[in-house]
Amino acid sequence: MKKAVVLLSGGLDSATTLAITKDRGFQCHALTVDYGQRHRAELNAAKRIAKAFQAVEHRIFPLDLTVFGGSALTDKRIDVPLAPSTGIPPTYVPARNTIMLSLALAWAETLASNDIFIGANAVDYSGYPDCRPEYIAAYETLANLATKAAVEGCKLSIHAPLIALSKAEIIRRGAALGVDFALTVSCYQASDDGLACGQCDSCRLRLAGFAAAGLPDPARYRQAP
Amino acid sequence: MKKAVVLLSGGLDSATTLAITKDRGFQCHALTVDYGQRHRAELNAAKRIAKAFQAVEHRIFPLDLTVFGGSALTDKRIDVPLAPSTGIPPTYVPARNTIMLSLALAWAETLASNDIFIGANAVDYSGYPDCRPEYIAAYETLANLATKAAVEGCKLSIHAPLIALSKAEIIRRGAALGVDFALTVSCYQASDDGLACGQCDSCRLRLAGFAAAGLPDPARYRQAP
Repeated sequence: MKKAVVLLSGGLDSATTLAITKDRGFQCHALTVDYGQRHRAELNAAKRIAKAFQAVEHRIFPLDLTVFGGSALTDKRIDVPLAPSTGIPPTYVPARNTIMLSLALAWAETLASNDIFIGANAVDYSGYPDCRPEYIAAYETLANLATKAAVEGCKLSIHAPLIALSKAEIIRRGAALGVDFALTVSCYQASDDGLACGQCDSCRLRLAGFAAAGLPDPARYRQAP
Repeated sequence: MKKAVVLLSGGLDSATTLAITKDRGFQCHALTVDYGQRHRAELNAAKRIAKAFQAVEHRIFPLDLTVFGGSALTDKRIDVPLAPSTGIPPTYVPARNTIMLSLALAWAETLASNDIFIGANAVDYSGYPDCRPEYIAAYETLANLATKAAVEGCKLSIHAPLIALSKAEIIRRGAALGVDFALTVSCYQASDDGLACGQCDSCRLRLAGFAAAGLPDPARYRQAP
């Protein structure tokens, strides 16, 4: 059984990605990065999801990006926007996916795995540069120059199975694969017990996605959205 | 004055890289990654070097790669080889430069810096895949797709000024720029007070480099090499 490293944040995209990875027959090694994100409930959600999909192993890697800041998610002085904005929003975290993929690459090499899965999505995404297909392709090129495993002939693949799906399509795909979306937390400012604000970019994308998919959103909101 | 992020390990290559960065007129922000390397004396060396070259700031970022292991430097069960070996040696750390460059990228973006310096070297290097020019070029391509700064038009450069130099050339360059090599630690298994073994790959490359440069090596060895 081939091993895959799956980046698992605790949101619905990465939960669906884990379900897809398992469905493709991989043994799943889930990696969550505790980068100091303000929505700590995400970490507990990741644990629940890894358990539900029987990941062989789930590691939560501490890596404190609040040291660098530069994002509403890693610097408490920057507010999470509650209305749609133009351009790349302040919830963008500098180099986040690059850092997380690099840790996944290190783990994949020590596991002798050639497959890394990430739930990056370029359609309903919030304008993050490191969620675009050209970024993922460049990372795969880099990964195949970076490691001893690559030099010795292993071809590493970075899989982003959601990259071209709408949020509604992701939700339908996840539902078909048995994802219990009640386990997931999407809100950028969820309370510690997982209550969502219903107003941030991520909540709005989620709510619109469930509406478009014609499915109820089982998330718990602080007030009816 | 333009800002640069300089990866600083505490060895002679990164010390020379810092000297070159400063000589090129950059304000230097030095970044050392405490990844759990067995040669802890390297971290103290990095502090001394950052101070000697008046880095504006020196951050030591904790990121425990012993969690993944897979290297003689991050897994105590794997011995550091004391004789030359063929192929990529066991001191190779999975994805190390990829991870360190990713942290440098995050910091550079929050500092509004477009320049990252790394002391990677492909000539006298130990066979590490992530020290090759094609790897550095691929990283630069990735970096220019990865960040908000890049999307907004900033061009990020990954500088590897030592990439094509021999160890002797690096030493001569560093000496000309005032690097005090007594401050540096190269040994993979240096004692906590910085005494070098004189036998590992890194010690052998260093000793041969000083001999070829016609300069005395001020490192302190446990026994005369």
